[in-house]
Amino acid sequence: MEQFKARNLSMLMDLYSMTMSNGYYLENTADNLVAFDVFYRRNPDGGGFAIFAGLEQVLDFLEDFHFTQDDIDYFKSLNLYNDEFLDSLINYRFRGTIMAMPEGSVMYPKEPVLTVIAPLMDAQLIETAILAQINHQSLIATKTQRIIQSAQGRPVSDFGARRAHNIDAAVYGARAAYIGGVNSTSTVMAAKMFNIPVNGTMAHSWIMCHKDEYTAFKHFVEIYPQNSILLIDTYDVMTSGLPNAIKVAKEVLEPQGKRLKGVRIDSGDLAYLSKEARKVLDAAGLTDCKIVASNSLDEFTIRSILDQGGCIDSFGVGERLITARSEPVFGAVYKLAAIKENGKFIPKIKVSDTVEKITNPGRKHLWRIYDKRGYAVADLITLEDEIPDLTKEYTFIDPNKPWKSKSFVGCTMRQMLETVMIDGKRIKPSPSLDQIRAYVKNQLEHEIWPEEQRFENPHHHFLDMSPAYYKMKIELLEEAHKHEQ
Amino acid sequence: MEQFKARNLSMLMDLYSMTMSNGYYLENTADNLVAFDVFYRRNPDGGGFAIFAGLEQVLDFLEDFHFTQDDIDYFKSLNLYNDEFLDSLINYRFRGTIMAMPEGSVMYPKEPVLTVIAPLMDAQLIETAILAQINHQSLIATKTQRIIQSAQGRPVSDFGARRAHNIDAAVYGARAAYIGGVNSTSTVMAAKMFNIPVNGTMAHSWIMCHKDEYTAFKHFVEIYPQNSILLIDTYDVMTSGLPNAIKVAKEVLEPQGKRLKGVRIDSGDLAYLSKEARKVLDAAGLTDCKIVASNSLDEFTIRSILDQGGCIDSFGVGERLITARSEPVFGAVYKLAAIKENGKFIPKIKVSDTVEKITNPGRKHLWRIYDKRGYAVADLITLEDEIPDLTKEYTFIDPNKPWKSKSFVGCTMRQMLETVMIDGKRIKPSPSLDQIRAYVKNQLEHEIWPEEQRFENPHHHFLDMSPAYYKMKIELLEEAHKHEQ
Repeated sequence: MEQFKARNLSMLMDLYSMTMSNGYYLENTADNLVAFDVFYRRNPDGGGFAIFAGLEQVLDFLEDFHFTQDDIDYFKSLNLYNDEFLDSLINYRFRGTIMAMPEGSVMYPKEPVLTVIAPLMDAQLIETAILAQINHQSLIATKTQRIIQSAQGRPVSDFGARRAHNIDAAVYGARAAYIGGVNSTSTVMAAKMFNIPVNGTMAHSWIMCHKDEYTAFKHFVEIYPQNSILLIDTYDVMTSGLPNAIKVAKEVLEPQGKRLKGVRIDSGDLAYLSKEARKVLDAAGLTDCKIVASNSLDEFTIRSILDQGGCIDSFGVGERLITARSEPVFGAVYKLAAIKENGKFIPKIKVSDTVEKITNPGRKHLWRIYDKRGYAVADLITLEDEIPDLTKEYTFIDPNKPWKSKSFVGCTMRQMLETVMIDGKRIKPSPSLDQIRAYVKNQLEHEIWPEEQRFENPHHHFLDMSPAYYKMKIELLEEAHKHEQ
Repeated sequence: MEQFKARNLSMLMDLYSMTMSNGYYLENTADNLVAFDVFYRRNPDGGGFAIFAGLEQVLDFLEDFHFTQDDIDYFKSLNLYNDEFLDSLINYRFRGTIMAMPEGSVMYPKEPVLTVIAPLMDAQLIETAILAQINHQSLIATKTQRIIQSAQGRPVSDFGARRAHNIDAAVYGARAAYIGGVNSTSTVMAAKMFNIPVNGTMAHSWIMCHKDEYTAFKHFVEIYPQNSILLIDTYDVMTSGLPNAIKVAKEVLEPQGKRLKGVRIDSGDLAYLSKEARKVLDAAGLTDCKIVASNSLDEFTIRSILDQGGCIDSFGVGERLITARSEPVFGAVYKLAAIKENGKFIPKIKVSDTVEKITNPGRKHLWRIYDKRGYAVADLITLEDEIPDLTKEYTFIDPNKPWKSKSFVGCTMRQMLETVMIDGKRIKPSPSLDQIRAYVKNQLEHEIWPEEQRFENPHHHFLDMSPAYYKMKIELLEEAHKHEQ
């Protein structure tokens, strides 16, 4: 029973976090200040970017982070850890500082999107929950943005709850989908919790629970004259559903001065049926009646339907949005970047034979560079005490082509990581969900190159480094390589 | 803040459930008794079966189902529904009967796995939450079973929390993975909640937070001499991690009479590295030191590693298990089967041009038929008042080949749907998670044909019908077809 009741989310950790924390406690290093970066390595679906989402829930989680006596007793039952350490957890609160991109930011591979500066133990305990939240919501926001793009301005609604990976995935997935651009959700819990517009009409069972389809439609519009969207594929769209819907429009709604708002098709050939249905509706004078389509849609099926001239006014998208079916793993990771020693952060690098897996070490700034038209032309990593002066000629290094430096004169820049939490407390109010959604839209319309937004072979955004940062990284790599031998 | 606190899960519904319920209330049909079946249409990953999971949480949800005044006020704010109806929800409790397969049952497409017999409104309100729970847990249990099969008896641990679709997906996913056969999880919340064995050692950050790899290993085994599994790929497995691990085994553990338990490799060519590492460990006399592998594993990579002779003793499986990456949608649906009229259930059928989408109508029994060796040779749907007598020759109809009836003489049978809830209350205690897990294992070892368990072109289990049931279904289809014309 109690698993669905109030939850203490601090326990959403991998056991190794506690194992290491107990170790640091015994080594007396648990309070050493460290910096960990969250970043991801590859855009889903071969896209050109991703959308950063889930920050609000991360901050909620960190502000509420605590252990109950019951949690402590559980850890004691494992007979792995020091009792004094475990007893000290009863008063434990997260003490760190968080720097992060604003929620809804367009983000790119390998750049820091969130930095945790905290005592070593604090930083280690929160890893799993932070990653789960950011990975999930960024996954769904990014997938949704693709679906929205394919719908070319037509409204899209999230219908996914029943196929979500359990309840949080439905609810936080709906939140992320709204950030990514859906106009509404059918998931009541998410709509209520986050104030998202909610919609929904009828299932096939409504029709099957009535004497016949006509009666089902008639009763429905009598009860909901303002919400008259009828599901017309229970028996047959063209020979039954559509004629019955038109009959109800003429016999029930029009005599009251009302109009049939829409019909929904949930099966069959959506491109063909929508074109045929449009002709029949128009011929009946129902030119204002919208056609809504649903049934395993995603960006590819929607694009195909519209390429075929499908007459669909809005889309309900379920399982392929809420699970990001084409690429259901978002792989953000959490890596040590620096350790403070004698008042100074010492950069740390994770080397690997796989070049892709080498981290960007140290404390750092991330800047987004905009050209005169306002387009983001590159992102730039600098040392934490560098502020590039773009009024002069400033040379950046592309780490993938270090022999080929480049300069951006007359560009503007923006610092991407903002401090949002100090000593475990938020330092400013969060933006509203509608503000986050509008921020996404604004970036995609005005800042992000269309060439980065196409599905096939998008342009890969440049992630450049200042000469000083690049030098520091290369020196660390050379040092590590010497060490290995 | 409050979104992570106590949750009232009744609001995890699609809005259309409330829209229809309000409609039934106004039509005065909300209390009509109906039966809905949950079933799915296609096995994930082209497999031969799936594992039914999530029942325990469905029953929790139904016993706790209620609306708060705050929920009611939210619905009132939508200005869609009748106020008297909404006010009546404050006393509303789920009043239905649930019949279901025991949790952990092997299940097949198109057969009922759970039946709800309830007043129309009750049955409609619970649809989304039931489906989300069963779809998610069945997805993960089914995927896990494939991974376990590929590991050929080697232990597998769930490492997936950070890539799960939010917190429930990590926690209930770990539960489902345990049902599907993992030996342990690294997700503390799930381990505590469901009493699953928990494990975990260190991240790369442990090594990077120490002076050097040797010191990191030394401190770790000093603190955890009984839990000495060392992560050896932070710098380089063969030139650094492995020599340092062996040095710690010789210099720190062996003088205390202790042994190095294992090494973990989390990157690189796992087949090659594990074979090389095995040779070096054996040459150093560490023949009892286990090799643990992790890094984007699934049933295909594990099979490939073992086919290449990889010397891996156990696997940690993360993102591809916890998201069921190869097929992240489990498509169970919830369809009206019958409506009670004048004391008798009248069967209802959902027709469709897509033959696959035609439902199996009416109240029904589902039987599993076993041959003399104990193998399940077919499942059988009968009318609810039929009990097949297998001591005599009994003829079944294969609905895909109705011209070809068959008989099973001397077989035994088992009724698959058990009544687990009456009037909204559980009627018996639930099995423990370990019992469910053992039940899965027993079915796969003793009851389910190996031919149904292979990955490529598995045998498709027969879902047969009694002659009387088949006749009823065909008559309903003929009736519906007449109606259409």
